[in-house]
Amino acid sequence: MELLKQRILKDGMELGTQIVKVDSFLNHQLDIGLFMALGKELHRRFGHLGINKILTIESSGIGIAAITAIYFDLVPVVFAKKSHPTTMTEEYYGAPVKSFTKGTVSIARVAKKYLNENDKVLIIDDFLAHGEAAAGLASLVEQAGGTVCAIAAIIEKEFQGGSRKLRDAGYYVDSLAVITKIKNGQIYFKESSD
Amino acid sequence: MELLKQRILKDGMELGTQIVKVDSFLNHQLDIGLFMALGKELHRRFGHLGINKILTIESSGIGIAAITAIYFDLVPVVFAKKSHPTTMTEEYYGAPVKSFTKGTVSIARVAKKYLNENDKVLIIDDFLAHGEAAAGLASLVEQAGGTVCAIAAIIEKEFQGGSRKLRDAGYYVDSLAVITKIKNGQIYFKESSD
Repeated sequence: MELLKQRILKDGMELGTQIVKVDSFLNHQLDIGLFMALGKELHRRFGHLGINKILTIESSGIGIAAITAIYFDLVPVVFAKKSHPTTMTEEYYGAPVKSFTKGTVSIARVAKKYLNENDKVLIIDDFLAHGEAAAGLASLVEQAGGTVCAIAAIIEKEFQGGSRKLRDAGYYVDSLAVITKIKNGQIYFKESSD
Repeated sequence: MELLKQRILKDGMELGTQIVKVDSFLNHQLDIGLFMALGKELHRRFGHLGINKILTIESSGIGIAAITAIYFDLVPVVFAKKSHPTTMTEEYYGAPVKSFTKGTVSIARVAKKYLNENDKVLIIDDFLAHGEAAAGLASLVEQAGGTVCAIAAIIEKEFQGGSRKLRDAGYYVDSLAVITKIKNGQIYFKESSD
C-alpha cells in the first residue's frame, strides 16, 4: 500500500536493523485518517472472505481493528488480553505469546463466550515480526473451533520470518507494507502490485 | 445517554456492589456500531470546546477514542502506555495510576513529543471509578503545559467518588452513563436530561 510506505519513510524511525518505530502515527499517537484508509484497504483485500469477526491483541491492534470493523459491516471486534483482570471470571482460551519488543512472554486470553465454531475471523495486528502474536491469536480461534480466514498485518518485517512460518502452517497472510531490510538507516520495502 | 443505559441493563453484569462487567460490548468484545453512537454523543457534548487532541490510556479506552476522533475532524489520538516498551527511547511524561480492577499501580507514560502547550485535550476513558486514570492523564497534559478541556467517561460509577474529586480539582467532567448504586443485582442510574 503506497500511502503507508510513504508514511513509514516520512515518519518512521529505524532503531538499529530490527526495529522500525512508527509511534507518531500507528501505535502511540494514532492518525485516524490513515487508519480509515488502512481499514478500507483491508476490506478491499479481505472483504470477499465472509469474515464475521475481527480479532486482535492489546494494545496497538485495537485502534486499527475498531476502525476496520466500520468497513466490514460493523462485525464484532474482540481483543485478546495479555493480563488476567479480576473481572475475567469465566473460562477463557489462552495461548502463550512472546513480545519481540518487550522481551516478555504473556498469555493471550479471550473469554470462551467471544469465540465459537461459527466464527470466520480476520486477525489484525499492527506488526508482524516473528509471528508470535498472530500464531497465538490463531490458536485461540482454533481452540474455539472457528476458522482463521486471514492474518493481516499493517507492517510486516519479512526478514524476521513470521509470515513464512505462518504460511507454512497453512494461513493466508497479507500485510499492507512489507519491509525486507533495514540497513544503514534505510528501510527497504518489497515491491507489490497494490 | 439512554441507548447506553439500556445496553448496560441488557448486557452488563454486576459483580458484587462495586463492579459492572461490560465486556460483551465495551472492553473485550467491542460493538463498533455502539462506539459510533458514543463518539457522536461525545462530539455533541464536547464539540464546542476547540479540542485538538484526544488522550486515553491503554487498553480499553483506545477503541472508543479512535472511533470518537472521526467525529472530531480526525484530531490525533494519543494513548498513554502502562508499560515501558524498549521502543520508547525518548523522554516521556509519567504519572502513577492505580488500577481499581487489577489492583496494581503503573506509570502512565506519553512521549514528550506527543503532548505540548498548544494541546486542548479531551480525556476519554471507558470507566470512571476512583478517578485515578483520569487524574494521571490530566497530569500528563499539564506537565506538557497543555489544557484539559474535559474528562469524558463512558460509564461512571459515581459512588466511588472519582468524578467528585476531579470536579473539586477544577476539571469539567461528564459521563455518558452514571451509575449511582449497584445493589441486590440491580444497577441504578442517575437521571439525566440527555
